[in-house]
Amino acid sequence: MAVVVSMNIARAQDQKINVVVIGAHPDDCDLDAGGTAILFAKMGHRVLFVSVTNGDAGHFNKGGVELAKIRKAEAEEAGKRFGVTYKVLDNHDGLLMPDLKVRSELIRAIREWKADVVIGPRPYDYHPDHRNTAIALQDAAFMVIVPNIVPETPALKKNPVFLYTEDRFKKPNPFTPDIVVDITSVFDQKVFAVSAHQSQFFEWLPWLDGQLENVPKTESERLKWLANSRKGSVSKEARTSLQKWYGNKADQVKYSEAFEICEYGSYPTDEDIQRLFPMLGK
Amino acid sequence: MAVVVSMNIARAQDQKINVVVIGAHPDDCDLDAGGTAILFAKMGHRVLFVSVTNGDAGHFNKGGVELAKIRKAEAEEAGKRFGVTYKVLDNHDGLLMPDLKVRSELIRAIREWKADVVIGPRPYDYHPDHRNTAIALQDAAFMVIVPNIVPETPALKKNPVFLYTEDRFKKPNPFTPDIVVDITSVFDQKVFAVSAHQSQFFEWLPWLDGQLENVPKTESERLKWLANSRKGSVSKEARTSLQKWYGNKADQVKYSEAFEICEYGSYPTDEDIQRLFPMLGK
Amino acid sequence: MAVVVSMNIARAQDQKINVVVIGAHPDDCDLDAGGTAILFAKMGHRVLFVSVTNGDAGHFNKGGVELAKIRKAEAEEAGKRFGVTYKVLDNHDGLLMPDLKVRSELIRAIREWKADVVIGPRPYDYHPDHRNTAIALQDAAFMVIVPNIVPETPALKKNPVFLYTEDRFKKPNPFTPDIVVDITSVFDQKVFAVSAHQSQFFEWLPWLDGQLENVPKTESERLKWLANSRKGSVSKEARTSLQKWYGNKADQVKYSEAFEICEYGSYPTDEDIQRLFPMLGK
Amino acid sequence: MAVVVSMNIARAQDQKINVVVIGAHPDDCDLDAGGTAILFAKMGHRVLFVSVTNGDAGHFNKGGVELAKIRKAEAEEAGKRFGVTYKVLDNHDGLLMPDLKVRSELIRAIREWKADVVIGPRPYDYHPDHRNTAIALQDAAFMVIVPNIVPETPALKKNPVFLYTEDRFKKPNPFTPDIVVDITSVFDQKVFAVSAHQSQFFEWLPWLDGQLENVPKTESERLKWLANSRKGSVSKEARTSLQKWYGNKADQVKYSEAFEICEYGSYPTDEDIQRLFPMLGK
Amino acid sequence: MAVVVSMNIARAQDQKINVVVIGAHPDDCDLDAGGTAILFAKMGHRVLFVSVTNGDAGHFNKGGVELAKIRKAEAEEAGKRFGVTYKVLDNHDGLLMPDLKVRSELIRAIREWKADVVIGPRPYDYHPDHRNTAIALQDAAFMVIVPNIVPETPALKKNPVFLYTEDRFKKPNPFTPDIVVDITSVFDQKVFAVSAHQSQFFEWLPWLDGQLENVPKTESERLKWLANSRKGSVSKEARTSLQKWYGNKADQVKYSEAFEICEYGSYPTDEDIQRLFPMLGK
Amino acid sequence: MAVVVSMNIARAQDQKINVVVIGAHPDDCDLDAGGTAILFAKMGHRVLFVSVTNGDAGHFNKGGVELAKIRKAEAEEAGKRFGVTYKVLDNHDGLLMPDLKVRSELIRAIREWKADVVIGPRPYDYHPDHRNTAIALQDAAFMVIVPNIVPETPALKKNPVFLYTEDRFKKPNPFTPDIVVDITSVFDQKVFAVSAHQSQFFEWLPWLDGQLENVPKTESERLKWLANSRKGSVSKEARTSLQKWYGNKADQVKYSEAFEICEYGSYPTDEDIQRLFPMLGK
Repeated sequence: MAVVVSMNIARAQDQKINVVVIGAHPDDCDLDAGGTAILFAKMGHRVLFVSVTNGDAGHFNKGGVELAKIRKAEAEEAGKRFGVTYKVLDNHDGLLMPDLKVRSELIRAIREWKADVVIGPRPYDYHPDHRNTAIALQDAAFMVIVPNIVPETPALKKNPVFLYTEDRFKKPNPFTPDIVVDITSVFDQKVFAVSAHQSQFFEWLPWLDGQLENVPKTESERLKWLANSRKGSVSKEARTSLQKWYGNKADQVKYSEAFEICEYGSYPTDEDIQRLFPMLGK
Repeated sequence: MAVVVSMNIARAQDQKINVVVIGAHPDDCDLDAGGTAILFAKMGHRVLFVSVTNGDAGHFNKGGVELAKIRKAEAEEAGKRFGVTYKVLDNHDGLLMPDLKVRSELIRAIREWKADVVIGPRPYDYHPDHRNTAIALQDAAFMVIVPNIVPETPALKKNPVFLYTEDRFKKPNPFTPDIVVDITSVFDQKVFAVSAHQSQFFEWLPWLDGQLENVPKTESERLKWLANSRKGSVSKEARTSLQKWYGNKADQVKYSEAFEICEYGSYPTDEDIQRLFPMLGK
Repeated sequence: MAVVVSMNIARAQDQKINVVVIGAHPDDCDLDAGGTAILFAKMGHRVLFVSVTNGDAGHFNKGGVELAKIRKAEAEEAGKRFGVTYKVLDNHDGLLMPDLKVRSELIRAIREWKADVVIGPRPYDYHPDHRNTAIALQDAAFMVIVPNIVPETPALKKNPVFLYTEDRFKKPNPFTPDIVVDITSVFDQKVFAVSAHQSQFFEWLPWLDGQLENVPKTESERLKWLANSRKGSVSKEARTSLQKWYGNKADQVKYSEAFEICEYGSYPTDEDIQRLFPMLGK
Repeated sequence: MAVVVSMNIARAQDQKINVVVIGAHPDDCDLDAGGTAILFAKMGHRVLFVSVTNGDAGHFNKGGVELAKIRKAEAEEAGKRFGVTYKVLDNHDGLLMPDLKVRSELIRAIREWKADVVIGPRPYDYHPDHRNTAIALQDAAFMVIVPNIVPETPALKKNPVFLYTEDRFKKPNPFTPDIVVDITSVFDQKVFAVSAHQSQFFEWLPWLDGQLENVPKTESERLKWLANSRKGSVSKEARTSLQKWYGNKADQVKYSEAFEICEYGSYPTDEDIQRLFPMLGK
Repeated sequence: MAVVVSMNIARAQDQKINVVVIGAHPDDCDLDAGGTAILFAKMGHRVLFVSVTNGDAGHFNKGGVELAKIRKAEAEEAGKRFGVTYKVLDNHDGLLMPDLKVRSELIRAIREWKADVVIGPRPYDYHPDHRNTAIALQDAAFMVIVPNIVPETPALKKNPVFLYTEDRFKKPNPFTPDIVVDITSVFDQKVFAVSAHQSQFFEWLPWLDGQLENVPKTESERLKWLANSRKGSVSKEARTSLQKWYGNKADQVKYSEAFEICEYGSYPTDEDIQRLFPMLGK
Repeated sequence: MAVVVSMNIARAQDQKINVVVIGAHPDDCDLDAGGTAILFAKMGHRVLFVSVTNGDAGHFNKGGVELAKIRKAEAEEAGKRFGVTYKVLDNHDGLLMPDLKVRSELIRAIREWKADVVIGPRPYDYHPDHRNTAIALQDAAFMVIVPNIVPETPALKKNPVFLYTEDRFKKPNPFTPDIVVDITSVFDQKVFAVSAHQSQFFEWLPWLDGQLENVPKTESERLKWLANSRKGSVSKEARTSLQKWYGNKADQVKYSEAFEICEYGSYPTDEDIQRLFPMLGK
C-alpha cells in the first residue's frame, strides 16, 4: 500500500488532547516523559502510561509474581502522583518479543485512549525489551487507523503523531530533539512521582550500579539523591530546539524532556506541534 | 561464513534479463517499479511482480476473502497492463512477520524466475508489512545461491543484484538513488496499469486521506487524478544520478523511478548496471 | 528500566581476562578475531569461540548431519591451533532466528565463561545468520547481569564490554574501528588455524566464487593461497586507530583486526581498553 | 481448579434457544447437523454455523483466495436455505492447529451468540482439521464462562451443553448417540441446502472418489444423487436412542442426526435435553 | 527408541521417598492428592506440589498479577498446612499449552526433587489446562532419565512411577483406581489445608456455581461447608482396590484418594507399590 | 469436508508395492516392521524407512552432531541389511512436536515414494517422540491426496492404507493385531540388521536398563543376546489373527510382527490386505 504523504494531518481527536506514553517497564514512561505528562495533566488533558511488561525480572532478590505485584502497586502510586492513568500489561520482563500479540495490545490501548500523541522508545537502546517495545510501537503506528486490523476495537479516524523519547545511543543514528519541553516548574513533582518506584530506584538500580549501601535512608534525602542522579543535562541540540519553541525563555530552562518525531505516524507541522503541545512557549 | 567481496559478479543468467519485483501488497510493486517494468517488458525481458500479502486488510468496508479476491483480480489486470506476471502470495495483510516461511517463499520465487535483478522495499518505511517484506527479502538475498536451503528448488548459480525502491524516510539513513530510470515515455501506461487497483486508488486510499467524495467518477478523469497524485518529483540527488546514466538527456526527464543498491546481494559495477538496465542512456 | 550511564565499569572479573567470541558459523570467529585470540591465548588469557549454528548448510554437495560433523571436527582442530576453546551450538545453519532460545544460549555461554569481553558481528551483514546472531547478541548484552533471566546460571556481577567485528557494509552506518589490534606477528598462525576449516576455504567458498578448480592441491600452497585472499588491508580509519593505540609502531603493522564498541554493553574508557587488551601498544 | 460436578445446569440463556454448530470446513456443519438446524430455525430458535477454516484447499483445480471466495458464497447461500447464520473464519484449510488464536475465536463466537448448545466434531476423525477443530472446541468448552479469558467479550453466565456430531470411527472409542433427532420431515430441505456447496459435492468430493464423470448435470438429478449418497442409515444404537426420545414414533424415522454429550461442557439431564431440543418427541 | 519392558524398576532413589504432585492450578494438587501427601509427610517423606500455572485467571473480579500474588500466598499457606513444599510456576492460567518450555520445567522439577513417585492429572478432564498439564507430564515421563534432554539438570538414574489422579470422565476410557489410599485419619487436616485457597473455595468456585451468597461467614462453618462439598464418595471400583491394599480394614475407610498407574513411567509391581506407598495397609 | 466412506479403495499404485515405514528414531522402524520389510524386499517390492528424528539425544555419553552422525551411519548400514532405503530426517531427538513442518515432511516422503502402505506408531506409547510421530502421521494420512497441501510435491491419486505398529499400551485402548505377518523365516536377518544400531542395542539401551556390563563382547554373542531380548512373544489375539491369514500354518509361527489398521487412511478389505501383503498365507 502506498499512502500519499499529506494524508494524515494531526489534529486533536476531541476537545482534550489524548496522550499515550509507552514504556517497556513500569518506570520507563516516568523517566522519559513524566514531566511532560504532569504539564499535560495540569492543563486538563488526558495521559495514559502503558508499561508493556510487568517488570517481574527487575530485581536482585525478588522476582516473578511477587515483584510484578510490587511494581504494579508502585506504578499505580506513581500514576497518581503524575496525574495520569497507569496501565501495566502482563508480559514477562526481559523476555519481550515484538510479536503480533504485543502489537495488538498496543493498537488496542492507543485506540481506546483515542490518542492524538503517542510517545515511546527508539529501537536503539541498551535493553532488548526497550528495542522490542519500540519495534512493536512502530508496527502499531500505521495500523491504528486500519479498521480490518484488531477489528473488535474501532480504528482511529486520524493517525496520531508518534514521538520517540530521548536516549544516549549514537548508532545507527543519534536521537534528534525535534521537540523539547521545559519541565523546570514540575521537576520536583516528577522526582517525587518517580520515587514511587522504590523497588527500582532505591533497590535494583543501585544494586546493579554497586551503590546499594549508598542509598539514603530518609524520604527527603532519597528525593534529593534521586533528583541529583536523574536531573540530566540539556544538550546543545536540545538547547537549540528549546530556543525554537520557547524563544528567549529557553535560557532559563534547567530541566527538560526531548522528543523526536517518528516518521511512521502522522507527520506534524510546527503548528500541529504547538497545538498538540500547548505547554510549549509558556 | 565469510565470503570474498569479489565473489558474485552480476550477469544475466540467460539471454533475457529476469527481473523480480517484491512488494508487500498488490499495488506496491506497481507504484515503486511499474514504469521500469514496462520498459523491461517492451524490450522483451521478463518481469515478475510478487505481492507478499494478499491485501485482505486494505479497505474500509470490505475485508478478508472478498477483498483478497478483488485485489488478486486487480493485480492480474494490472499485470496485463504492465506486461508482467503478477503473483499474489496468500499471507494476511497487516500481519506479516519476517519468518522462515515467508523467507522461503521469496527464495523459491526468485529461484524459479532465475532472477538477475530483484527489487523491493527498504526496511525503513511506515507500514510494518513493508518493513517485514524488506527484512524477509534481505534474508533471502544470499540464501538464493545456497543449495542446502529450500533444497527442493535448485539454487541460482549467480547471486542476483538486489535493489531497494525509493521511499521518503530519513532515519536511520535516507534512500540513495544509485540507479534512476527515466519513465517519462511510459508514464501514462504506468498510470493506466496502476489504475487497475481500483479498490485501492479510488476507494481505500482516498478514504484514509479523507478524500473519498473527491474521487472522480469517469475513467478518464480518474486517470488524470491518479496521474496527478502519483507523478512524484525528481529529487536533486536523483537528478544527479540521472545525469550519470543519461548524460544530457537527463534534463528532459519528467518522471522517473529510483533504486538503491542493496549491499547484501551481488554488488554491481557501473557496467553491470548498464547491462542489467539496458534502458539506461536511451 | 533506566540505567545510569556510569553504571558498568569494565573490569577483569578474575585475574585472567576472559574473552568470548561469537560467530554465526564455525569459521566466523576465526576470520574476524582469530589473530587477536592467539595474542590473548599466548599471554595466558582465556578465549572461547562460539559458533551459534552448526554449519550444516554451508556446502555444495554435502549437508545435514554429515556436514555438521565435519565442521565440528574442523572447528575443534582450529581451536587447538588458535589456543582457544571452540563450542559449536546445534542450531541449523541458514535458518537462525533471533529468538529467546538462542538468546538464552548466548547468555549462558557468556556467564559460564565469566566473560570480560564479548566480540561478535554487527547486525548489518550480508548473511541472515550473521544479522540474527548480532541481534541475539545485542539482546544478551544487558541480560547477562540480570539474575532473574536464565536464573539457573548465575548472573555476572559486571557487564562485559561488547565489541563488533569488522565488516564492509555502509548502511545504515559503516563500521568504526574503535580498537585495532596488530596481528602481524601471528598472522601466519592465524592462517594455519583458519585453514583447519577445509570444507569451507578449499571447497564451499571457492565453489561459491567459481574458483573450485583453482584451489591448490598441496598444504603449503593452500596456506599461501588462503593467506593471500584473507590478508585484508588496513583502512585509513583503522590506521588512525592504530596510531592511537600503538603510536609510532603503527606504521609497521601489516595485518590487523578491528573492533567497534557496542553501545549496549559496558562502555569502556581508553584505560579500560588498555587493561582488557594488554597486547595494545606492544 | 476443581469444579463441583453439579455446577452447571443447562438452561436457555434467553427465551430463544441459541445454537452454535462448529465445523472445520464450509460444509461440515451442514452435513452433521443441518437437519436439526432446520428444525430449530423453523421453531424460531437461532442457529449459527461456524466454519473454522475458509476451505481454501478443498479442490483439485482451484485453491487459495479464489476457492475461499467461492466457498464463502456457497456457505452463505447454504445458510439461507437452512435458515441459519453462516460464519466462515479466515484460517487456512488443511493447516489448522489447535492453538490459542483459534481457541479464542471459538470462545468469542460462542459468547457472542449466547449459546445454550454448542455442537462440533469429536477429536477422532480422518481429517486433521476435524480433529484440531474438536480439540480447540474442547479447549473452549469451559473457558466460555471464565471472565478473565478473552476478557473483551463478556463471559457466559451458564456453560452451554457441548455435543459431538456423529462419525464412523471406533478408536479409541466409538461415537455414542445420546441424542438422536428425527430429520425425516426436513431431509429434502437439508439436501437442497447442502447442495449449495457445489464446489464440494459436485466437484471436489466426486473427484476424490473417482466419480467426477458420474456427477449428474441437471439440478434435480443432482439433488437426487446427493440425497442418495448422503441419506445415511440409522444404526442400532441410534434406533434405541430414538425410541428413548420419540417412543413409538421412532420406527417411522427414515433420516436422523445423532449427537453425543461432551463431558467437558455442562452435563444435561434428560429434562435439560428435552428443553434444549424441543423437536424431540414430535 | 525401543525400550525393554522390564527396564525400569521403581525403587526409592534415597532413603526417603520423594513425591512430586503436579497440578494445573494452585489448588489442584491439594484436592487430588492432599490427604496422601499429609500421610507421606507425617511418615517423614518429602512431597513437592507443583502448580504449572500461576492461577491468574481463576476469579470473577480479580485477575492478573494481583490474583497470581494472592494465589501464591494461599498456596504457600496450604503447603505449610499439608507439610509439603509448594512451587507455583509462572505460566498464565487458562492459556497453558503443552509445549517444550513447560515440558522442560516439569523435567527440571522432577529431577531436582529426585522423585520416586510423580502424580498428576489424566489428559481427559474438563479444563484445557488440566489436559495440557497431563500431556506435558506424559511428555516428561520418560525424558527425566535421558541425560541429553535438559542437560543442565542431571538426569535421574531410575524412572519414577507416574500416577494419575482421579477424575469423573468416562471418554475415551474411565479412570482406574489402581491404588487407593485411606485418608480418613487426615481428612480434617486436608480440608483445613485446602481451605487456605480462600479465593477459590469461598469466592471463585461458589460464584461459578451460583452459590456465592451461600458461602458461610465464619471459619469453622466454612470448614464444615468445604468438607461437605469435597468429601467425595468411594466408588465400587475404589472399594475393591481398597480391599486389595487394606484387607479387612477397607470397610472402615470413609475418605480416600485414588490413583491410576500411568503406562509411560516405570511400571510398578504390587511390591513396588507397597514400598512406595508405605501407608497402604495401615 | 465430509468424505464418503467408500471413497478410497486401496490399490497398488504401480506394479510394485511401495511401503513406507515411519519411526521416531533410527531404530524404531527396524524393530517394529523390520521382518515384514525384509519379506517385502525379498519379493521385489520397495520399502522406505523414515526416522523422523536424527536420534541425537539417545545416548549416555555422546550427543548432538556426533551422535546424529553415528546413528545415520548405523541406519544406513541397517538399511542395507534389511534391503530397504533408510531416510533420517534432521529433527532433534527428544524434542519432536507434531507441527506443520514435520507433517509436511511426512506428506512429502509418502508422496515421493508413491506409497501404497504406510506404517507407523500409535499415539499411545511411552516416548513423546513416538506419540508426536504418530500424531504427525495421522495428520498426514488424508492430506497426501489433497493437491493444495504441500503443492510442490504432486498428491497421490489413491490414499494409502495406514497401519499402526504393535505396542504394549492398554490405555485408552489396546493395540489390535488386524494383520500379523509371520517373520520366522527372516528373524535371524532381522536381528542381524537391527544389530547395526550398535550405539543403541549395545550401549544406550543396556545403560538405561542397568545392563551395560552384561553386554557380550563378540559379534556372535551379541546377536544371540539381541535375538533373545527382542524375540517377543505371540499374543493370543495375534495368534487368532495369524490363523485368519495363515490358516493351519499359523501354529508354526515363532516370530511375528503385527499391525493395526488406522481408520484415517484408506480402509482395506481382506482382499486388499492380501494383495498389499503378498507374504500372507505363505
